[in-house]
Amino acid sequence: MSIKFHVGMSTLLHVIEVLGVFVFASSGLVEARRKKMDLVGVYTVAFITAFGGGTVRDILLDRRPLFWIENYEYPTLIFVFCIVVSPFFRQLRQVVTERFILYADALGLGLFSVSGTSLALAMNMPLFVCVMMGVITGIFGGVLRDMICNEIPMVFRRGHLYASCAFLGSWVYLLLARVQDVELVALISAIAVTVILRLLAVRFDWKLPG
Amino acid sequence: MSIKFHVGMSTLLHVIEVLGVFVFASSGLVEARRKKMDLVGVYTVAFITAFGGGTVRDILLDRRPLFWIENYEYPTLIFVFCIVVSPFFRQLRQVVTERFILYADALGLGLFSVSGTSLALAMNMPLFVCVMMGVITGIFGGVLRDMICNEIPMVFRRGHLYASCAFLGSWVYLLLARVQDVELVALISAIAVTVILRLLAVRFDWKLPG
Amino acid sequence: MSIKFHVGMSTLLHVIEVLGVFVFASSGLVEARRKKMDLVGVYTVAFITAFGGGTVRDILLDRRPLFWIENYEYPTLIFVFCIVVSPFFRQLRQVVTERFILYADALGLGLFSVSGTSLALAMNMPLFVCVMMGVITGIFGGVLRDMICNEIPMVFRRGHLYASCAFLGSWVYLLLARVQDVELVALISAIAVTVILRLLAVRFDWKLPG
Repeated sequence: MSIKFHVGMSTLLHVIEVLGVFVFASSGLVEARRKKMDLVGVYTVAFITAFGGGTVRDILLDRRPLFWIENYEYPTLIFVFCIVVSPFFRQLRQVVTERFILYADALGLGLFSVSGTSLALAMNMPLFVCVMMGVITGIFGGVLRDMICNEIPMVFRRGHLYASCAFLGSWVYLLLARVQDVELVALISAIAVTVILRLLAVRFDWKLPG
Repeated sequence: MSIKFHVGMSTLLHVIEVLGVFVFASSGLVEARRKKMDLVGVYTVAFITAFGGGTVRDILLDRRPLFWIENYEYPTLIFVFCIVVSPFFRQLRQVVTERFILYADALGLGLFSVSGTSLALAMNMPLFVCVMMGVITGIFGGVLRDMICNEIPMVFRRGHLYASCAFLGSWVYLLLARVQDVELVALISAIAVTVILRLLAVRFDWKLPG
Repeated sequence: MSIKFHVGMSTLLHVIEVLGVFVFASSGLVEARRKKMDLVGVYTVAFITAFGGGTVRDILLDRRPLFWIENYEYPTLIFVFCIVVSPFFRQLRQVVTERFILYADALGLGLFSVSGTSLALAMNMPLFVCVMMGVITGIFGGVLRDMICNEIPMVFRRGHLYASCAFLGSWVYLLLARVQDVELVALISAIAVTVILRLLAVRFDWKLPG
């Protein structure tokens, strides 16, 4: 792999992760306001939903500096975002529909889990560990959010496939990354598989056996 | 200590930790099914109950790679185990009695806490920290399980001695490891003390003062 | 900065952190007893309230050994403290009033958050990350305590300013550390700002907008 290509890939992964951060932060903000938290709570829950999965992954893999410390403009931006958006929350809620949140969250799940798998693979982790890191990156922001909000994490309750989509998408990424050269194809295909699986699961009421 | 003996010890510690992993994973699986979680929840809770204590210990001591990443066949095996066992859960529950769970859990507590103490001692930690690492290794899988299941951790509520058994067993290990040469004797004696104390505490209703 | 001065500063930070540890441990002990936990629960909650914030900060920044492992006499002292104090808890509760806890907790908040900010600055972290580390050091002991006690963390619910005081105090520290040479002045001023803000917030019912 040429250096130029490597830089390109690393930029792409970066953009993907940033996009996921903002999508997840927004969903955390909405949840915290529903729980009637104040601005400190809103920012913390938005922050943890956005960076929690990646932080747990980085701590487990001992990667430092953490993503949000290396790119400290993102927590700062999310902080400003929370302050600016909070007064207009009532109006915002009419614009941001359930359907919008569903789509945004599915996209975040795909972006985060595939980028997490890709990072673990780049560290030469065994395949099953790569998949676990992908799933952890994708779902642990939401798990920590629910633990702080004093609820059993949504992803562990019986509902439409969620973690399973990240699980399958991560395997798709590992498979494609092995059988062909263009990393970009593997990334985009795996993200697409995860997102589409998630949307189909909600649409057609797919659940795991109880 | 000869290299051969050192390898023998490290193998023994390894076997002990693996045994503990499977015992605790099974108890996590049972708990998650009681909470009517789906397969994702069952696997995660089984995983966290089994590896949570050791993971917290390794993060606090900065040991990497984590036990379950170095031995990635164990999370894989537990994953397969959860899938295979889930459909037969109803039948399983009649075979796996309360009494069986009590014994298995006491054994897991002894195995985990003593191996945690031994690891910390090998890193030249101060004695009180060694004991704390032992207790953390022994009980934090269950603490994290209860936090995810949205309950006050069982070990902190007033009940039959649990963490205290790990605490005393860890001191027994440190004492024996100091006064005599054969590590194996220290390990097995300390595990036995922890397990027996736990079973006696349940049998004779021993509790800490409230 | 002369080496002698550096040692003086590091000693001062040390004393500050120790003072904070004991203040927070006491507040954790009171909470755990209110929840009718046994001695294991009391010690764990006291320990986590005291060391939780600093431990999360150190893990995020990858600082090792952890503060309470390097100074292992503090967990030991707190352990002895919990054992000695527990039998006299009923009498203690009449001496230790709500007002005393409020003052002690405000002092702990100031000490912890400013020392956390100072540590992060010494590691050349970006300013916003320094402030986040200060706030995390100040509030996460309480957050973990509330998560273990199965409650939505107090600091995220709408109440008198708390995290906001640590936030502003941390900025005061960073500002003063930049504009003048004597670190001691920056430390003490920032701690004073945090503590006074917190007490004023309770006195005059200051809250963040909901």
